[in-house]
This record gives sequence, structure tokens and C-alpha cells, in this order.
Amino acid sequence: MAEYSQTFSRLVNELSKLPNIGVKTAEKMAYRILTMDTESYSALLSSMESVRKNIGFCSVCGNMADVDPCPICTSPIRRKNLICVVRDARDISAIERMRSFDGVYHVLGGLISPMDNITPDKLKIKELVARVKELGEDAEVILALSMSAEGETTCTYLVRELRPLGVEISRIAYGIPVGGELEYADGETLSRALFNRSKI
Amino acid sequence: MAEYSQTFSRLVNELSKLPNIGVKTAEKMAYRILTMDTESYSALLSSMESVRKNIGFCSVCGNMADVDPCPICTSPIRRKNLICVVRDARDISAIERMRSFDGVYHVLGGLISPMDNITPDKLKIKELVARVKELGEDAEVILALSMSAEGETTCTYLVRELRPLGVEISRIAYGIPVGGELEYADGETLSRALFNRSKI
Repeated sequence: MAEYSQTFSRLVNELSKLPNIGVKTAEKMAYRILTMDTESYSALLSSMESVRKNIGFCSVCGNMADVDPCPICTSPIRRKNLICVVRDARDISAIERMRSFDGVYHVLGGLISPMDNITPDKLKIKELVARVKELGEDAEVILALSMSAEGETTCTYLVRELRPLGVEISRIAYGIPVGGELEYADGETLSRALFNRSKI
Repeated sequence: MAEYSQTFSRLVNELSKLPNIGVKTAEKMAYRILTMDTESYSALLSSMESVRKNIGFCSVCGNMADVDPCPICTSPIRRKNLICVVRDARDISAIERMRSFDGVYHVLGGLISPMDNITPDKLKIKELVARVKELGEDAEVILALSMSAEGETTCTYLVRELRPLGVEISRIAYGIPVGGELEYADGETLSRALFNRSKI
């Protein structure tokens, strides 16, 4: 983009490294950053700085929070022996939004993917096993990982590690989204939904 | 989003004010901003700061540039009497990318839109008329505005202001995009393309 000044191109380039941001969107964003009023710009800047400075990851579960341990881990009304295993911290907020899960979490920090060089030792699997071991046979683990090659591999691996501990292990259900039209579902989802049918 | 810490929600909120950014994308961006390494974050931050500090708008044409007047206005190989009128500074880079236009520009800063309270006096129309008047009858003006209700209104208004100066006024062609399939063109574009057919 020699058509823009180098300064502008550099910002477009940095912005387009962010997830879901293509060059066109990055250009629009950069132009807005250039033209927005000082007040809006300060608000954007200070919120970025504040996130970098004040948010960390819970040393127990890996959730992001302003305090450590996070409010979920220290909550007196949460069932500490029910651990929901998720890929990353953003999954926690998706589940919390439902306001119906009363257990705690464990963030793996990714899924096993030999292609991307993500081996089990790079994920918080040892930490999960240690947590479950400490809870004893009373513990229950829910695997809330995506139904993908990486998700499957990770589930298989986790089950192999956790099974010897004698705890209950379950996996979230996969199927047609509630309110979703059958005709728009892909074949994999549809066959999974048929296979996992429940008696009425 | 009470599920996130307030600090995080504030960043998501600020990011979702940027153009083309929905809440989901803003969440992904905020999460990346939180987790990216210090080096990448510094690069993003400094490029934002640099754009705000170093880029301004050319006092002649309204183009964004590190210097004033901008390099296009001061270029010795540009035809100063051929003015291409555009909506905003980003349109200039779209045209410059072609590397085939050798005139100069004039940025209006928007299109006339009574609905949005954008009246002619809020745009750089007086400035355009003054520039053209100074050039005299030798000048040529190309209107490169979008084919929309606002674009039409603005063109009509500009023609009325510029016609008395006796200069040549033209408008860019509208039609089927080069390489575009006829079947995917909307009716308006198609009829415009038929109407503006050229003899072969």
C-alpha cells in the first residue's frame, strides 16, 4: 500500500494481525483511529492499557480475571468438585452467560494438534490431573471441547489420563442447535444428532 | 457482559465502536490484545500513536499525509487543473492504487444527506468552487462519488455550483465490474450498464 503514508500503512498492518480483521477492515479502523475525536481515542487507548495492566489469568483454573484466584474459583456457592474443561478463557464467558452451570472451570489453553506443534505437555493437562487427583473419586469432569479433529484427540487423551482416577467423566452434547433448521445442518452434525437421539 | 471483568468489557465496548466491528469480533480482538506478547502490543500501540501524532490532512485537497500540502498536491508531474472530487481520503488511495490518474484530488468529507444532517455547508464545497474558480476555464472536474441517493444529490448540487464557471465536468462510469458476472449484478447496475453501453 504505497498509496498511503508509511505511518498509516504500518497501523493498517498491525491491525490486520488481529483476529477476524482483513485489510479492508483494518483500513477502515485505521482511518477511524486517525479521525476520531481525542476523547474517544483516549477511551480506546486507556481501555487497552488497563486490560494489559490489570487482567491476569487465575492460577487455579486459567480464567481471566482482575484477581487471583478468580471470583469463580473463590465463590462459596460453586461446586468445587465439578470441573468443566474448556479450550480457552473466552469459552468460560460463553458458558457463564447461560447462568445455569454451578461448577468451576479448567482452561487447557488450546487443543492437542500435532500439525500445529501443540503437544499435550504444552497444555494445562498435568494441572488438571493434579486438581482432579486432589479432589478424589468424588470429582466430576465435563469435557466442553469442540467436535473437531483436535477436540476429539484432546478428549481421547484426557479420558485416558483421567479414567484411572475413578472419577465421573462426561462430554457436552453435540447436535442440531436449538432453533436451528434441520435443512441447514451439515451432515456430520445431523448424523451426530440422530445417533444421540433421546427417548421421549 | 457481566461474565467478563469490567476492565475487559470496557475494552470490548470501545473496540466495537470501530467500523465493521461487531461484539464477537471485538471480544476476539480484546482477548488477543490481552494475550499478545509485549513486543506485538508495543508495535500496535506505537503505530496508533504515530498515526494520531504524525498524520494530518492536506490544507489544499484534504488528503491525509505526513506533510502539508500533501505529496500529490506538490508533485511536479501531476496535472493541477484536473481535479478528481471524492468523498473521503480513503477513496484517494483506492484511485492511486491504479496508478493511472495523473490529476489532483479534492476531498469533500462526506456526501450531502439531509437525513443525517449533512448539508452542503458542512462539506468542502466552497473550497472546491474556490479552487476551480482560481484555475479558470482551463480546469476539468471529475466527480468520483458513489451511485447512491446521497451521491446523486451531491453530484447534482456540485454541477449546479460548478456549471457557471464554464469548466468541463464529468462523472465516473457506473456499470458491471470488470470480471463480474452479469447474473450476480443487481438490477440497478445492470440497467445502468445497458444504458451506458458503448459502440464497438
